[in-house]
Amino acid sequence: MSIQVQLIENPKGIADCPGFKMAGVACDIREKGDLTQLDLAVVTAEKPCSAAGVFTQNDVCAAPVHVCREILSPPTAKVAGFVVNSGNANAATAEQGMTDAKEMSAFAQLETGIGSPFLICSTGRIGRKLPMGKIKSGIAAAAKALSAETQASLDTADAILTSDTRRKCATAQFTYEGKKLTVSGIAKGAGMIEPNMATMLAFLATDLDVDNASLKNALVQACNKTFNRISIDGDMSTNDTVLLLASGQSGIIPTDSPDLLQAFRDAVFLVCDALAEKIVGDGEKVTKLVELIVEGCQTEDDAEKVARAVGNSLLVKASWYGSDPNWGRLADAAGYARVGLKEECFDIFYDEVPALLGGIPQDSKLSLWKSIVSKKRFRITLNLNQGSGSFRLLTADLSEAYVNFNKSE
Amino acid sequence: MSIQVQLIENPKGIADCPGFKMAGVACDIREKGDLTQLDLAVVTAEKPCSAAGVFTQNDVCAAPVHVCREILSPPTAKVAGFVVNSGNANAATAEQGMTDAKEMSAFAQLETGIGSPFLICSTGRIGRKLPMGKIKSGIAAAAKALSAETQASLDTADAILTSDTRRKCATAQFTYEGKKLTVSGIAKGAGMIEPNMATMLAFLATDLDVDNASLKNALVQACNKTFNRISIDGDMSTNDTVLLLASGQSGIIPTDSPDLLQAFRDAVFLVCDALAEKIVGDGEKVTKLVELIVEGCQTEDDAEKVARAVGNSLLVKASWYGSDPNWGRLADAAGYARVGLKEECFDIFYDEVPALLGGIPQDSKLSLWKSIVSKKRFRITLNLNQGSGSFRLLTADLSEAYVNFNKSE
Repeated sequence: MSIQVQLIENPKGIADCPGFKMAGVACDIREKGDLTQLDLAVVTAEKPCSAAGVFTQNDVCAAPVHVCREILSPPTAKVAGFVVNSGNANAATAEQGMTDAKEMSAFAQLETGIGSPFLICSTGRIGRKLPMGKIKSGIAAAAKALSAETQASLDTADAILTSDTRRKCATAQFTYEGKKLTVSGIAKGAGMIEPNMATMLAFLATDLDVDNASLKNALVQACNKTFNRISIDGDMSTNDTVLLLASGQSGIIPTDSPDLLQAFRDAVFLVCDALAEKIVGDGEKVTKLVELIVEGCQTEDDAEKVARAVGNSLLVKASWYGSDPNWGRLADAAGYARVGLKEECFDIFYDEVPALLGGIPQDSKLSLWKSIVSKKRFRITLNLNQGSGSFRLLTADLSEAYVNFNKSE
Repeated sequence: MSIQVQLIENPKGIADCPGFKMAGVACDIREKGDLTQLDLAVVTAEKPCSAAGVFTQNDVCAAPVHVCREILSPPTAKVAGFVVNSGNANAATAEQGMTDAKEMSAFAQLETGIGSPFLICSTGRIGRKLPMGKIKSGIAAAAKALSAETQASLDTADAILTSDTRRKCATAQFTYEGKKLTVSGIAKGAGMIEPNMATMLAFLATDLDVDNASLKNALVQACNKTFNRISIDGDMSTNDTVLLLASGQSGIIPTDSPDLLQAFRDAVFLVCDALAEKIVGDGEKVTKLVELIVEGCQTEDDAEKVARAVGNSLLVKASWYGSDPNWGRLADAAGYARVGLKEECFDIFYDEVPALLGGIPQDSKLSLWKSIVSKKRFRITLNLNQGSGSFRLLTADLSEAYVNFNKSE
């Protein structure tokens, strides 16, 4: 009997989940003398907790990513919580970056008086040393302000943002043996920051009692279907990180029952999926959100290649921006994915309306295509009709404002 | 003793090479009632000649590409010449497209009275039937006007252009046994057309007497080092075609002597290289031309992956447009090529000025980087210091005007 899992309305961030305290503070990490912009957050579990992380696959990865991987490498590692700063990515900072990252983690332990290590994340400008004085004053202030109240939770969700225009929270809940159980999460977007890196960070928390390996399984599965299937500009950051911490506050152990474990996994998936969609919808200078479905490939890998070729094509993205149903560009990009597409088998649909069927243009539908591509959100389906491999990519258009926004620091 | 080959000043197109007649005419293929825009060209050899072609690797390829491949499939195929139209790509036009492409070829034979087949190329809007009435009237007019004069050659070079802002010609010559020998060429750019496809076409001619296989060898080698190493927006067209025809007018057979064969190959390479550079420099709305050198990879394939990741990164291209020496984006893109880059071995240079040495930023040079990236043309070298594989990519920036230009038909 499967357990029903649902996203809640008006999620408030990590504090939706019992067992965590947190604070978001302003400490001028951007070094602009601005003490109103929240830019550092500390989150702690009430007792040392199990945790899992998924990290960027980039060969160039930032110092905090190295530090997190090290902390999480023992199978039974317990963590105190995590520290995040925005405004500086601590990436391409060589040895000094590693020293600073470790110091940031150690200083959070010192200020909170917790014996277990803190995971750390940084996002922002690359190639610049962390302003450690400011970081430390931020950690000290946050450690004093730790709370499970809504405002602290919202401040934490705000402190991780960079070029995002809005806060990103999602929370899923389900009931088991009369107990309400929760997975909550916050994220920052895949828009570049300040404007240096297309970094995405997400932090999830649960009150279930889950071992590190089961957390990791659930997180990897969810990321593969969500955060790894969104694309704004095709750039992969040096800092991408998704963390999942389990406070165990509920005393419920999901590995005790297959249904319960599935419900937990579903909750992690739903939170990741909701956050991923918020990230694309708030991509830098994005005006359209496009759900790209590729079907009928010989393998899922082939379908992914086609989806990424189409979803990352500048010509395709520019045409979406212009509300131009330019299916020729879709066909061209699908063709250069080189998966053996056969023109005479190829179908293209805008929402449910065919543009190409068996390689033959359905020109009589032109005005329908046009009205679909003019919407803020629409779906494009490419069917190669050569197998059962499929892939879904959530992507976006490319605006002139994106280029202007990213042309210089 | 190697033979000196040189590009000539003020190349005039195919007619720089003896043995060909040609004409470029206006026949309103764009169906705008404009009979001033040259949009169709016919080129013929004085006698049926050997030929070779290199074509798009896109799974979706246009009808004329299929027809050319078929004509050139017999090892000893001889051709009459070629017909090109701009304004309509005859791509994604299903069976009707194949019928039209073959008819275009047959009609050129009929009008010129030559027994051998004509190669054909089309470039322009995708997914729209060729206006065959206009095509035929153009072929008929061109067949009557065929000439080896300079004006006919310039008209031919103009008739193949689409969104190009200037004519692209290059001619290389060398002397052998007192005889002047020539490889001439024309091209149209990799900017999208009207604005549908990032098509590049190039046509080369020589008066040497060369068999098809030797033509093909020389052409493939040259294309791999030139046209296959340029990138404007990373999109690969359905129509990309490079043809090389040998009139044999000089009576000189390059396969008779290794030095002579090398000189011929050098000439083909020089013409392709010059045309490739003109294509990037005239890319749609391009403001900067960037020579990207990737060195020190374990293999040439790895170096190519890094070069393409960097050269096609929207973030990198946008920063070039803004004259921003944002080496962090270069490092990030190089890292996601996933060739095993080690940060502590990684060097980056703007022209000769280091930005990163062994992973350590050379911040004192910032003002020098900035002045280099502000130039119209500059070089970036990435050295992974892990082997001897290297790759050179000629690429360009990404401007707001590009997005605006391509946002709709």
